[in-house]
Amino acid sequence: MRKISIYDTTLRDGAQTEGISYSVNDKVLVARKLDELGVHFVEGGWPGSNPKDLEFFQKVKKIKFKNSKIVAFGSTRRKNKRASQDPSVKALVAAGVKYVTIFGKSWDLHVKDVLKASLDENLKMIADTVKFLKSKKMTVFYDAEHFFDGYKNNPEYALKTLKAAEAAGASVIILCDTNGGTLTSDVIKIVGEVKANINTELGIHTHNDNAMAVANSVAAVEAGCIQVQGTINGYGERCGNADLCSIIPCLELKLGMYCLGNKKLRELTEVSRYVSEVSNMKQQDNQPFVGSSAFAHKAGVHINAMLKTTRSYEQISPESVGNKRRFLASELAGKTSILFKAKELAYDLTKNDKNTKKLHKLIQKLEYEGYQFEAAEASFELLIKKTLKQYKKFFELEGFRVMVEKRQDNKLISEATIKINVNNTREHTASEGDGPVNALDSALRKALQDFYPELATMHLSDFKVRVLDSKAGTAAKVRVFIESQDEKSSWWTVGVSENIIEASWQALVDSIEYKLLKERERKK
Amino acid sequence: MRKISIYDTTLRDGAQTEGISYSVNDKVLVARKLDELGVHFVEGGWPGSNPKDLEFFQKVKKIKFKNSKIVAFGSTRRKNKRASQDPSVKALVAAGVKYVTIFGKSWDLHVKDVLKASLDENLKMIADTVKFLKSKKMTVFYDAEHFFDGYKNNPEYALKTLKAAEAAGASVIILCDTNGGTLTSDVIKIVGEVKANINTELGIHTHNDNAMAVANSVAAVEAGCIQVQGTINGYGERCGNADLCSIIPCLELKLGMYCLGNKKLRELTEVSRYVSEVSNMKQQDNQPFVGSSAFAHKAGVHINAMLKTTRSYEQISPESVGNKRRFLASELAGKTSILFKAKELAYDLTKNDKNTKKLHKLIQKLEYEGYQFEAAEASFELLIKKTLKQYKKFFELEGFRVMVEKRQDNKLISEATIKINVNNTREHTASEGDGPVNALDSALRKALQDFYPELATMHLSDFKVRVLDSKAGTAAKVRVFIESQDEKSSWWTVGVSENIIEASWQALVDSIEYKLLKERERKK
Repeated sequence: MRKISIYDTTLRDGAQTEGISYSVNDKVLVARKLDELGVHFVEGGWPGSNPKDLEFFQKVKKIKFKNSKIVAFGSTRRKNKRASQDPSVKALVAAGVKYVTIFGKSWDLHVKDVLKASLDENLKMIADTVKFLKSKKMTVFYDAEHFFDGYKNNPEYALKTLKAAEAAGASVIILCDTNGGTLTSDVIKIVGEVKANINTELGIHTHNDNAMAVANSVAAVEAGCIQVQGTINGYGERCGNADLCSIIPCLELKLGMYCLGNKKLRELTEVSRYVSEVSNMKQQDNQPFVGSSAFAHKAGVHINAMLKTTRSYEQISPESVGNKRRFLASELAGKTSILFKAKELAYDLTKNDKNTKKLHKLIQKLEYEGYQFEAAEASFELLIKKTLKQYKKFFELEGFRVMVEKRQDNKLISEATIKINVNNTREHTASEGDGPVNALDSALRKALQDFYPELATMHLSDFKVRVLDSKAGTAAKVRVFIESQDEKSSWWTVGVSENIIEASWQALVDSIEYKLLKERERKK
Repeated sequence: MRKISIYDTTLRDGAQTEGISYSVNDKVLVARKLDELGVHFVEGGWPGSNPKDLEFFQKVKKIKFKNSKIVAFGSTRRKNKRASQDPSVKALVAAGVKYVTIFGKSWDLHVKDVLKASLDENLKMIADTVKFLKSKKMTVFYDAEHFFDGYKNNPEYALKTLKAAEAAGASVIILCDTNGGTLTSDVIKIVGEVKANINTELGIHTHNDNAMAVANSVAAVEAGCIQVQGTINGYGERCGNADLCSIIPCLELKLGMYCLGNKKLRELTEVSRYVSEVSNMKQQDNQPFVGSSAFAHKAGVHINAMLKTTRSYEQISPESVGNKRRFLASELAGKTSILFKAKELAYDLTKNDKNTKKLHKLIQKLEYEGYQFEAAEASFELLIKKTLKQYKKFFELEGFRVMVEKRQDNKLISEATIKINVNNTREHTASEGDGPVNALDSALRKALQDFYPELATMHLSDFKVRVLDSKAGTAAKVRVFIESQDEKSSWWTVGVSENIIEASWQALVDSIEYKLLKERERKK
C-alpha cells in the first residue's frame, strides 16, 4: 500500500484567506487538532515574516505532539547575501524546529521581474539556503514556487532550480502551482517529466484558482508525488489552496493509498467543522465529503433509488468520512421522504399510520403556504412532535409590539415590548436591539430567562429572508430562516407571513421551543 | 478554433440545491440572462415531474430568445410500456420545444436494483424513447446517467447503452458522472475508450462530490467531448454540478477554444452574481474566476510582486471574466469598471476626471459597507447624478416610526407614521400595511402624493433581503434590494443597514427619487 504524507498549511497559507485572522491561541488549537487527526506535517507559519508566527513557535516547543511534526516556513536567502546572515533564514533556525520548508523561484519571469536577480544567482540562493539549513541538522523541504508556470515558460531553467535544491540536500521537492491556473492534463505531463529528471522524492502544492486544486493534487500523486500540501477546508488566498478534506478521502478510498488510515478518516467531518469554528468561517454546505449537504438528497427519483441501494447516488458511504446522509423534506418529493426523514430523527412512523397521513397533509398545506422544511429541520421535527403529541407549550404569548423610529438627527431606535404567560405567571418586559428582529429576540429571551435559564447558552447565529412571489391580488409573503446554536449544535427553523416581523417571530419561537424540548429529552 | 457548446442546467439540476426553490418567474429571469450571455442550450426543467416546470415551458413559448435553445428534460420510458403512452414522455412532447434531453441507465447495478428491469429491456427503453422523440421532429440529446460508474463495473454493457442511443438517432451522447466520484485520470481514459467505439458526438456532465467536476469536464473536452453540461455557480444537489463559471474561462482562455467569445466572457462575473441573487444564495467569496476574493491579494510578498508584474500571482487577468483585482491591505480596485458602467448609462466620464475619482472612492466605501450595485443600477445612477451635481432633493425627512403589534387574538397590525418637508410645507401622515415595509412605503407615498402626482403610476414590484456575514463582534448587516415599476420600465435600488427597516427605507427613497428624476428628464 503506497503511503502518502499529508502536509497541512492551514496555519500559513490558509491564514491568507480573506476574513481569517488567527490569534496565536487559535493556531495552537488548530495544530493540536491536526495532530489528533494524525496529519504528518503541520506548517505553523513564517517566523521571518511576522511576530505572531514567531510566538507560535515559542509556544509549541512546550507541547508534545503525538503524530505531527511542526514545520517552519521561509524563503531562500536574499540576493547577494549569505544565508547565515539573512534575517529571515536566521529566524527559521531560531524557531527551534527540526523541519523547515523554504520556497524559491522556478519561473524565470519571477527571477527577472520580481527578484530582479540573475538566473544564476537564483540557483545559488536556492543551493546556499538549503545547504545552510541542512548544516543546522534540519530536514529541508523545498517548495518550488510557480513551478508549473515556470516549466511551461522555460523547462530547462525550471529543472535547474530543482537540481540545485536536490544537490544541496533537500529531502522532498514540492512542485507548486502557486497561481492555481494549471490544467490537470499539464500537471500529469509535467510531473511525469520531472520524475524522469529528479531522483529526490516529490510533493505537490496546488491552488484552486481554476477549480482544479484537488484534481491536480490527486493526479500528481498518481503520477508519483509522495507528499501532498493543502489546507483544511481549502482555506487560502484568492480561491484557496487544495482542500485536504477532499484529497485525503480520494487517496484513501479511491486509490487505496494510506494517509491517515480508515479510523482517523472518520474524524474528518468533525475536524473540518472544528477548524471552521476556530477560523470563524461558515462551513460551506456543499463542501465535498464534509459539508452538511454533501450527502443530502433532494430529487424524488434519487430518494426513491437510495431506498433501494445507497450506492445509487453516493460516491462513498458518508460514515467513512464521519458525515451523515440526509433526505431533504422537499416539495418535489412525497410521503417516502417524510418517513425517511422521520426515521433519521428516530421517530417510528409507518406508511399507513394515521399520524403519517396527518403529518403529510400538514406539510403539504404548509409548503403550499410557502414554508420550506428542507433547510429547517428543527421546525420539521417540531411538526412531528406536535403530530405525535410529544409537544408541550412552554409559554403563551399575550402580545408584542415592535417599533422602529428614525428621527431627524438620523438616529435609529428599535424597541420591542412583550407580554407572555408562563405557568400562570405573567411577564411584561421590553428590550432594544440593532433592528426589529434583534429587539424582539432579545425581549423574548429576557421574558423567558427566569423560567428557562438554559436559554442563556443559545444564540441566534444566522438569519435568511426570502420574499416569495405574490399570488394575484395578495401581498407578497416573506419566508424567514433562523439558525440558532448552543455549545453542542446548531439548528434551523422557519416562519412565513406577509409580515416579516411575524415570520421572524414564528422562527424564533420554534428555535426556542426546539432547544427547550431537546434539553428535556437530554435530562430524561 | 474548436467550438464547444455550452449546455446550462441551472434550472433543472441546479434547482436541486439545498436551499434553492425557484418560482416560475425566477426561472424565466435566469433563462433570459443565460440567453443574453449567449449560452447555447438552456435546460428549463422536467415537465413530467412537476407542474411548475410545465408552467415554465408554457411561459417561454412566448419569449423570443436570441441565442439559447430551450431544452426540456425527461427520462426514458418506463419498463414494459410504449414510449408514446408514457405520461412523462408525452409531457416532453407537450412542452412544445424542439430540443429534448432524456436520461437513461448505463450502470447495470441501476438497471437491476433500481429499475428492476432486464438489461435487454433497458436497451429497448433507451432506443424506443429516442426514436419516438425523433419521430416528433425533435433533436434528442441522450444523457447516459452514471456512465463512468457503469463503465467501470461493466464496460461492455455500458457501451451497449450508448450504441442503443446512437442507433436510435441521438444527436449528442452525454457521459454523466452522476455521483461525482470519478477521478480525472479515469475520465481521460474512459472518454478516450468511448470515442474509439462511438461515432456520435459526445458531451460531458459531471458532479462535484470529489471536488473534481471542473477538472473532469475540461479533461473530457480535451479528450474529445464537444458539449459541456453544467450550472451557473456550480449549483446542484449534494456538492453541486460542474461550475460553468470556471469551465468556460478554462476552455476559452487556457485551451483557446470557442464557447461564448471573449466579449461575452467579460459578462461572466455579473451573470454569476445575478443568478446568485435570483437564487437567493450568497455567492461564495472564493469562487474561482467570479468570486469577490478570486483576485484579492492579501500576502505582502504577493502584493509587492503584483505591483511589478500582474502575471506574478494571477492565472488570468480579472477583466477577462469581468471581475476585479483587489488588494486587501490597500483598497485599489477597479476604476475601469465604473467608467464602463457609467458610459453604458450615457454619462461621459474620463479616467482622470476628478468626478471619476470621487465616484470611485464613494463606491469603494459603500461596497466595503455591504452595498452592491451590480443588481441595483438605479441606485448606482443616483450616485453618479449626486457626484455630477445633477441631483436635487425632493423632500426632507423629519422622522418616521414603524410599529408592528401582535395581540393575543393573533391579530397583527403594521402601522407607519411619517413627517416630511417639501418646499417648506410639512406633511405628517400615517398608513397601515401588510407588513412594516409596506406600511412605510404606503405612508411615504401618501405624504408625497399631493406634491408629486406622477408617483401614482409606480409601485413596488419586488423585494429581496440578504443577511450579510457579520464580522466578529458586530451585528449582521442586512442588504435590501427593491424593484419598482411604472408603465414604462422597472428599476432596482439598494439599501444596507443593521436594521432592516432602515435598509428598506434607503432603497425606497432611492426608488422614488429615481422615478422623479427620470420624469424631470423626460419633460426637458
